[in-house]
Amino acid sequence: MCTSTRARGASLSAEPLSGLRVFEVSTFVAAPLGGMTLAQMGADVIRVDPIGGAADRQRWPLAESGTSMYWAGLNKGKRSVTADFRSEQGRAIVRDLVAACETGTAVVLTNAVGRDWLSYEALSEVCPDLIHVQVQGRSDGAPAVDYTVNAEVGFPMVTGPAGHADPINHVLPAWDIACGLYAALGVVTADRRRVHTGEGERVTVALQDVALAMAGNLGFLAEAQVNQVDRTRIGNYLYGGFARDFSCSDGGRLMVVALTARHWDDLLEVTDMRAPVEALESSLVVSFRREDDRFEYREVLAGLFQRWFAGRTTAEATEALSPTSLVWSQYRTFGEAIHDLQDRPNPLMSVIDQPGVGRHLAPSSPLRLTSVEHDAVPAPRIGADTDSVLADVLGLDRATRTQLHDDRVVGH
Amino acid sequence: MCTSTRARGASLSAEPLSGLRVFEVSTFVAAPLGGMTLAQMGADVIRVDPIGGAADRQRWPLAESGTSMYWAGLNKGKRSVTADFRSEQGRAIVRDLVAACETGTAVVLTNAVGRDWLSYEALSEVCPDLIHVQVQGRSDGAPAVDYTVNAEVGFPMVTGPAGHADPINHVLPAWDIACGLYAALGVVTADRRRVHTGEGERVTVALQDVALAMAGNLGFLAEAQVNQVDRTRIGNYLYGGFARDFSCSDGGRLMVVALTARHWDDLLEVTDMRAPVEALESSLVVSFRREDDRFEYREVLAGLFQRWFAGRTTAEATEALSPTSLVWSQYRTFGEAIHDLQDRPNPLMSVIDQPGVGRHLAPSSPLRLTSVEHDAVPAPRIGADTDSVLADVLGLDRATRTQLHDDRVVGH
Repeated sequence: MCTSTRARGASLSAEPLSGLRVFEVSTFVAAPLGGMTLAQMGADVIRVDPIGGAADRQRWPLAESGTSMYWAGLNKGKRSVTADFRSEQGRAIVRDLVAACETGTAVVLTNAVGRDWLSYEALSEVCPDLIHVQVQGRSDGAPAVDYTVNAEVGFPMVTGPAGHADPINHVLPAWDIACGLYAALGVVTADRRRVHTGEGERVTVALQDVALAMAGNLGFLAEAQVNQVDRTRIGNYLYGGFARDFSCSDGGRLMVVALTARHWDDLLEVTDMRAPVEALESSLVVSFRREDDRFEYREVLAGLFQRWFAGRTTAEATEALSPTSLVWSQYRTFGEAIHDLQDRPNPLMSVIDQPGVGRHLAPSSPLRLTSVEHDAVPAPRIGADTDSVLADVLGLDRATRTQLHDDRVVGH
Repeated sequence: MCTSTRARGASLSAEPLSGLRVFEVSTFVAAPLGGMTLAQMGADVIRVDPIGGAADRQRWPLAESGTSMYWAGLNKGKRSVTADFRSEQGRAIVRDLVAACETGTAVVLTNAVGRDWLSYEALSEVCPDLIHVQVQGRSDGAPAVDYTVNAEVGFPMVTGPAGHADPINHVLPAWDIACGLYAALGVVTADRRRVHTGEGERVTVALQDVALAMAGNLGFLAEAQVNQVDRTRIGNYLYGGFARDFSCSDGGRLMVVALTARHWDDLLEVTDMRAPVEALESSLVVSFRREDDRFEYREVLAGLFQRWFAGRTTAEATEALSPTSLVWSQYRTFGEAIHDLQDRPNPLMSVIDQPGVGRHLAPSSPLRLTSVEHDAVPAPRIGADTDSVLADVLGLDRATRTQLHDDRVVGH
């Protein structure tokens, strides 16, 4: 059972999530991101993997040493324990770690499915106030991954240039990211209730539900159901407004967004297109101060503006845009983005020395609380904290720990 | 000052965020999604808009009545108050609402910038334990939107078919979504600290930081910095593994993901490609049981599998894939997705009757806590709750409320 040597919440130090102990049995993006996010706010996050690591340990990109920079990026600031999940003794280690948690502290965060020993039912027997967050593919427990739920929900069919025939997947695993942030939110939300009631809770979040919910929240599904309109591809235009990418004479490319009337005025001004645009408005009997008219005539308008961009280098165009209210950015590669961060430091990024990768710029949490330290910290070597966690959390003596290791019940 | 008529936390009923009162001064996606997410867990979220609504009130898609289904989707379950932000009297209403909150309950969530009267500094004067979450474009306060930070960070340059020259924007506002979920997490996280210490806090989250953090977390930036590799477009393949879309004889398209050795075995089995693939392995001296070798030879392997899909209808292919361990989905349009939800109910979706839109399927929160009711609820008509909030929260009598309305200090 959870030990109760300390009053609930009494352990809170400066960081808002200190006092929470999260056991994360996870792979890939969503659950690891959720755990890392909690670690970044002060939770003690212990990722528990099979000996040697889980299925994501060699996910690309890899450093020259073979170390996964993807794994490192998603597991910063955690402790790492490894145990043999196939043996009853190894599974008992996980159960004992959860059982050893003080009241009001225990969290299990996992995307493992079909493992009864990791379920809320099994673990709440040894820790009645456990918060257990299950990340899953579908809410019925069936598997799904970011790319498959994305295919189902509709976005690849509206991504890319008008007229393009084939689906275009996103490269950013956006559903994994949203799912991982929901998982972190689920932990802190359920903990709020636990602080007040003393009760733990089972929390679930499914990738498919996340994708469907966002397609619904943004009106994509309602539009299809209520208006019976299936949206088509519009390239880099903004639906219902005016925004597009423009190319400069040197090949540089700018994304320019005119959301408000003031943006629109500034765009007409800077490109010297007020007179021709007003002439068009009169003869077409429309008002481009209205977003919907701007959208309807987007190709015409973009064609006029494109002439201005084509006559300027990127430097000239950006110099002209800078004093305006317009929201714009230059398209960059990841390489250009990191070079810019090296030249112009951003407090989000700090240099860490990641084992197997070396010194590089890594992000801390973009969520900035005044009570939280914000320097990035490295990820652990897989298994690195096994011995210290068995000693400190379970109180096992050296002989017992050595035996567990020699018996390959745990790694190191 | 915050009134203290109730002990901190004493008001918690069944839902985990009950007792929190969130004043949301917001537009577009991130901050409204953050507020809605809090409402879905039991917080009392009052969106306060200028009279007539904010800049997002007519964002597409629109219903035939002109009502924005986008606005409705992102503001479900909130109350709506309108006031004249340009008048001192209107701004005083917002300040008074915050000041009227009981200790341990007040939250302000906003993406408005440059409004001193809405700042943490101004509002914490009337409510010392305020949690104030500022969503912004960049951490220095400069403006940015989803599409511009996406252009800067690198994803549009690696999205789409190999060889495609131009940037391809995402259609899903993924950074807005992540930013909104971070904002919700910031509220609940800071509230955990407030419950323990009695102190409020200033929280910020910037769209640009969210994008940079995720590009870093997933290894894109480290790869560019450490390996000095700028990734190129690989279409719908999965980087470093094996996944791709395949087209069937009837034009249906399936996304098929083989992450594990078991997936790979099943893919060889179902497509009857074991012999030719093994022959290739021998002669090329590679092992396609390894993810990296599968990725290196992805076009060759996909070419073999594509022949199997091309010889089958979508129904035949999905029937063959169903009993396997493979993770796969059929690409659908938004229309096909919503039709499927109408045919096969998902507990995430329920029918709501949204004013100006009508009855349609809308999502609740994909984050499912056992302590939370999960039916979707409609968004308010803009301004609908002004009078009741002035009466209930501020305790203003009918004559005063009528005067405020007649003076156009508040809407209705």
